[in-house]
Amino acid sequence: MNKYAVFHKPESNFAYAFAGNKLKVILRLAACDKPDIVEILYNNKYDFTKNRCVREMTRFAEDGIFAYYRSDITLQDARFAYIFRISEKGKVFYYSEDGLKEDYNFELAYYTFFQFAFINVADVMPVAEWTKKAVFYQIFVDRFARGDYRKDDKYINVDWNGKIDRYSFAGGDLDGVREKLPYLRGMGINALYLTPIFLSESNHKYNVKDYLQVDPQFGDCQKLKKLLSSAHGNGIKVIIDSVFNHCDCGHGFFQDVVKKGRASEYYDWFFIDGDNPDVKLGNYACFADCRYMPKWNTNNPKVRRYLTDIALEYLKTGFDGLRLDVADEISHEMWRQLRREVKEKYPDALILGEIWHDNEPWLKGDQFDGVMNYKLQKILVDYFGKSPVKAKEAADRMNGLLLANTEQANAMALNFLDNHDTPRFLRFTGGNYDKLLCALCAAVIFPGMPCVFYGTELPLDGDGDPDCRKTFDWTFQNQRKEFKESFNKIIGLKCQCAFKNARAEIAAENGILKIFRETEEGGVTAYFNTGGRTKKLEVNGSIIFSLNYKKDRLLNDGTVVIKNIKS
Amino acid sequence: MNKYAVFHKPESNFAYAFAGNKLKVILRLAACDKPDIVEILYNNKYDFTKNRCVREMTRFAEDGIFAYYRSDITLQDARFAYIFRISEKGKVFYYSEDGLKEDYNFELAYYTFFQFAFINVADVMPVAEWTKKAVFYQIFVDRFARGDYRKDDKYINVDWNGKIDRYSFAGGDLDGVREKLPYLRGMGINALYLTPIFLSESNHKYNVKDYLQVDPQFGDCQKLKKLLSSAHGNGIKVIIDSVFNHCDCGHGFFQDVVKKGRASEYYDWFFIDGDNPDVKLGNYACFADCRYMPKWNTNNPKVRRYLTDIALEYLKTGFDGLRLDVADEISHEMWRQLRREVKEKYPDALILGEIWHDNEPWLKGDQFDGVMNYKLQKILVDYFGKSPVKAKEAADRMNGLLLANTEQANAMALNFLDNHDTPRFLRFTGGNYDKLLCALCAAVIFPGMPCVFYGTELPLDGDGDPDCRKTFDWTFQNQRKEFKESFNKIIGLKCQCAFKNARAEIAAENGILKIFRETEEGGVTAYFNTGGRTKKLEVNGSIIFSLNYKKDRLLNDGTVVIKNIKS
Repeated sequence: MNKYAVFHKPESNFAYAFAGNKLKVILRLAACDKPDIVEILYNNKYDFTKNRCVREMTRFAEDGIFAYYRSDITLQDARFAYIFRISEKGKVFYYSEDGLKEDYNFELAYYTFFQFAFINVADVMPVAEWTKKAVFYQIFVDRFARGDYRKDDKYINVDWNGKIDRYSFAGGDLDGVREKLPYLRGMGINALYLTPIFLSESNHKYNVKDYLQVDPQFGDCQKLKKLLSSAHGNGIKVIIDSVFNHCDCGHGFFQDVVKKGRASEYYDWFFIDGDNPDVKLGNYACFADCRYMPKWNTNNPKVRRYLTDIALEYLKTGFDGLRLDVADEISHEMWRQLRREVKEKYPDALILGEIWHDNEPWLKGDQFDGVMNYKLQKILVDYFGKSPVKAKEAADRMNGLLLANTEQANAMALNFLDNHDTPRFLRFTGGNYDKLLCALCAAVIFPGMPCVFYGTELPLDGDGDPDCRKTFDWTFQNQRKEFKESFNKIIGLKCQCAFKNARAEIAAENGILKIFRETEEGGVTAYFNTGGRTKKLEVNGSIIFSLNYKKDRLLNDGTVVIKNIKS
Repeated sequence: MNKYAVFHKPESNFAYAFAGNKLKVILRLAACDKPDIVEILYNNKYDFTKNRCVREMTRFAEDGIFAYYRSDITLQDARFAYIFRISEKGKVFYYSEDGLKEDYNFELAYYTFFQFAFINVADVMPVAEWTKKAVFYQIFVDRFARGDYRKDDKYINVDWNGKIDRYSFAGGDLDGVREKLPYLRGMGINALYLTPIFLSESNHKYNVKDYLQVDPQFGDCQKLKKLLSSAHGNGIKVIIDSVFNHCDCGHGFFQDVVKKGRASEYYDWFFIDGDNPDVKLGNYACFADCRYMPKWNTNNPKVRRYLTDIALEYLKTGFDGLRLDVADEISHEMWRQLRREVKEKYPDALILGEIWHDNEPWLKGDQFDGVMNYKLQKILVDYFGKSPVKAKEAADRMNGLLLANTEQANAMALNFLDNHDTPRFLRFTGGNYDKLLCALCAAVIFPGMPCVFYGTELPLDGDGDPDCRKTFDWTFQNQRKEFKESFNKIIGLKCQCAFKNARAEIAAENGILKIFRETEEGGVTAYFNTGGRTKKLEVNGSIIFSLNYKKDRLLNDGTVVIKNIKS
């Protein structure tokens, strides 16, 4: 037994409740340790000393260093006390809050067992039903589609098919999005993520001057409501990019401080170094080094009130959720308040944070439902990109990612390949279309909600901002027919498969990455081979989708097979 | 490098902020690994790729398996990106979110560094100033002192010096506590923890019938206010045991449900199995198996509102904090609401939870300030008790305990030897008075707030409930003079030493348990020897307190030396 590897913690990603009496419990051991049997011993905490249920735990995942053992427990009541017993080569170890020991005193168990003192359903994170089959499409509004040809369009400074730079205004708007809803629905999209749409002088509108006025370039409140109602009529949910980390330096409150300095009632709404903020000096906290984006001080309860009210207003208007920009720079107190007030009125509203790094502190049930899955995107880039890591490394990292949070949070992660802040995925694959499709398939099969960046279906290519923000080509003149057919099949898998839960069994076998998901009908397994060599693969059961697969051979460099296992 | 042992996590007990720009960062390695140098590389996240500050980390603690390295960082601004570099025998390892690697790509650091995206002071847990020198005294009101001889005392069923059983009413009351304030103050006590005092038919009053009416056995609202005002006049804070997990089955709301069943507006305030709760059947959730204590359903927002209002009323009355009974069985949502509303009005109010097990989920800054330190009590019992564990084990476990939470939470833990739910500590030491004093000294020297159970100064002896709840003997006929002198000196150390922070360096040296604390004047080291053998000890610097210590020798079986190191 490798004592350094053994780990468990109640009320964490290693043990959490799904319902008042259902839990998932995970024990970590060293991957190289192969005990004969790993068991969980449990009971109501009051009866634990007297007698206990014993359940064998299942080894279900590895992350390269550690192996993970799981047990799903259904309790008689809400109180749960437990320890682990590991048997290896005739030796028995007990693992409790007291650590790994060769014996265990059940008489003193009350001091050392792990426990859920009482599972309260208010602390159990739910998963909104609609998110379980959601297939998102991210729209950068200025570049997707123009619908309103009667608006004052003097601001447009580039032809729709012209070359885009950082300062381009191409003319896309809310009417354009609305007109394309049947197109999106036809492709299998049932949820939209709109980048910001409120008053702002930039094309991206991440610097907001007025949080409640739709930018006239994009439309107005009526056009927004029309879009939302059409979307809902088409069975499409819509979430809105909510930029609460910073505003535009032209925002009324910031301008009030510019004018009045410390005398302004909004002085403490920002982080100002000195008496007056000065855009030339930049003597205040901003987003990154963007002096035109002063940062809100969410330590101030008044700021939290103001921004939370805006969030509530968005949901009242009809949005189905919020994508929270630069979410990790904002006070946790703000997010707790936002969740509390949002979920009280709109329990099914999705709260999605932009976090690139370790995100567990936001996903404990009191703040976000899920995050932009940057960790998955990095694995997809590394595995399906130009210099692919081995299938084993990809599998290890995918397992590590799933194990870092609860299944509920994993279910509501947004699995994207690329977005307005990254190069287009095709750039990562070096222009390889098959690999792009494979990565998309992995994003669909992996627990979470897949999200397609607008134009991926053409596919659009491009480097980082501004190249990834090209206009959508509605002539479809360069669309690849075969590619589009595969694309449609792949995103259709999310609804077709009807995954039973947010779990996956992920492993590398013979250099092939294999992802298994349980479905209502049995199961679905996806196989990926990017190793550059053709591999043999036995595929029993019906194949519901395949790309580059022939006669038990999984072709090299971008291949995927989806096998359907009937129960 | 033992790769299984390496661990770090931002925004956890391994990395947390003290202020907007001050952090403590801890890296864990295997105790047997002895790298040549362990460093932290850090910068503002935007500049991290270009260049970084490098700081050597200090190995500062071991817990038997792991060694811990610390760095205290003061930032230029609130954004903090970092990784670790470990050099061992000519090899260099980097540790980031990407794991332990032999090289690190600084160009891609934005994907893999550890980070605090932006430290918001609203998320930094403060330590109330008054708690830093608090020496608590826990009073079980019915047994401490009687002051009111005009009250209706027909309920008293035992002579003050008679034999106490579970159903005894001895007559102690709030006037009694008030009259003894000068006595307590004289002994060095500056904070009281009162067990429940509100309307209840039991002697312990943990089954509350009315949360806002002082039980007439103990006094009334006027007497309570008089006690609080006298206490405050004597420089004594008072916290109140708040029983929000359950009430008495005679509570009006429960009785309403007994009468009306599902038709009662309070039906959902409890966990009832069936149409009507029936005390004979016990068809509802209770505290333990006590049918007379129905459990509140804190999943219900109305219950949270009701109980939070009671907490606010307690603080409005003048209490300085709350000791939350059976805190781990109550919804986290309830505790977040309570903290939010309490701290908004009473930022210095202490919120202390009763948790016997892993308590980290409650101590992240959004719920409690500290907990009843059961983990420390167990170590003290095991080290100063009849069959003492070795000094090394005690030191390892003490370090493990301190490392499990932030310094702020450690600073506000209540370090008790015993209480109304445990045997008296003298019972654990087999009647050894010196060991009792040593354990008390450890509880004072250890980070946290020491708490003396009433009568320990006599000392009172006794087994578990009801034997630990004997009456206080105000004749002092059995008080041991020497014992009392030592007792006074020991609890005086808390104020005398003026500890600079909530840290401690704890180790076993030559079988002696050594606890070092930084003080304003330099430092203080306490030495404990329970090994049963006399040991030699070099003590430089002035000795400010000693028990059983002679001529460079630390006597066996209950010895303590406190050495003062001037800076």
